Amino acid sequence: MTGHPERRAALVDAGVDPVGTASNYFADRDDLLRQIDTRLHVRLAPDPDKFAELLSRPKDRSLVAAFMHDLMGRATHDRTGCLALLEMRLEATRRPELRASFTTSVRADLDEGIRFHREAGLPGGDETVTVLHLAMLGLLLEHLTPPGALEGVLPGVGVPEGLVERIVAAIVPMT
Amino acid sequence: MTGHPERRAALVDAGVDPVGTASNYFADRDDLLRQIDTRLHVRLAPDPDKFAELLSRPKDRSLVAAFMHDLMGRATHDRTGCLALLEMRLEATRRPELRASFTTSVRADLDEGIRFHREAGLPGGDETVTVLHLAMLGLLLEHLTPPGALEGVLPGVGVPEGLVERIVAAIVPMT
Repeated sequence: MTGHPERRAALVDAGVDPVGTASNYFADRDDLLRQIDTRLHVRLAPDPDKFAELLSRPKDRSLVAAFMHDLMGRATHDRTGCLALLEMRLEATRRPELRASFTTSVRADLDEGIRFHREAGLPGGDETVTVLHLAMLGLLLEHLTPPGALEGVLPGVGVPEGLVERIVAAIVPMT
Repeated sequence: MTGHPERRAALVDAGVDPVGTASNYFADRDDLLRQIDTRLHVRLAPDPDKFAELLSRPKDRSLVAAFMHDLMGRATHDRTGCLALLEMRLEATRRPELRASFTTSVRADLDEGIRFHREAGLPGGDETVTVLHLAMLGLLLEHLTPPGALEGVLPGVGVPEGLVERIVAAIVPMT
């Protein structure tokens, strides 16, 4: 686990693509899958400068929307990584060896979202953030698998950006 | 496709379990997967008598919650079927041969939800139903893959029933 971090990251990135059929490539893949999970969280993490700029804005509902657009932008920019995380949810459900670490990882994402929202002073309480998290997760799933399923579902509402706006408007109080 | 419908349903049910590793069992599985998708929609469909009883109640937000509890109950009762539908989303994303039919199937579920909500005179417009659909989809994903990730996220709120209540209360107008 020591040595050349960049080389290791490149090797793990190479593993992200075949995760759906990883059983064909790796005899014992639990450790590889855990490393891919960790690596995907790095790949999908927000840009610190972008986040610092967003946090300087007024703490109203439109700022929550800006954070959700940023999240959706990262997910669609690294669509392969996002699909790999979905594959791993199912893999962890099938394989007890992976379940504990992946359950911790999935839950940490939600807890981190709740903590961030609270500390940033954004509108809405923990329940708001939880419902928002679930709706964004559903949007990601429906938008990516299979692509195109949401096109035109609400006339005049773009996919996914317009739907992000509708989700935030429905769930988050204005201030 | 004719002959003994019950025998065919039993054969397709037998295919639901190994869908995650279907490539190990079936040389050409596109048609099997389409039949499984159709069959799962039958398995996961609401009970007509239950729905008729629900539709006789006042058309307020608590009725929307009752329908969402019914949906969640069907999904957790047939957890294997629900996981198979998630597997097929990913399979359809990888395989162009499956994508068109599965995109149509996924979209039909949402369109049917919008039509049902409108015709039943339930509170909230098409945007409400769309956001509710996405939040319930996210709840299903987070509740089932991996199981346990949501336990105790909101103190005193049961998983998944209490979260269903919070989703409906956050998204659906009272009347």
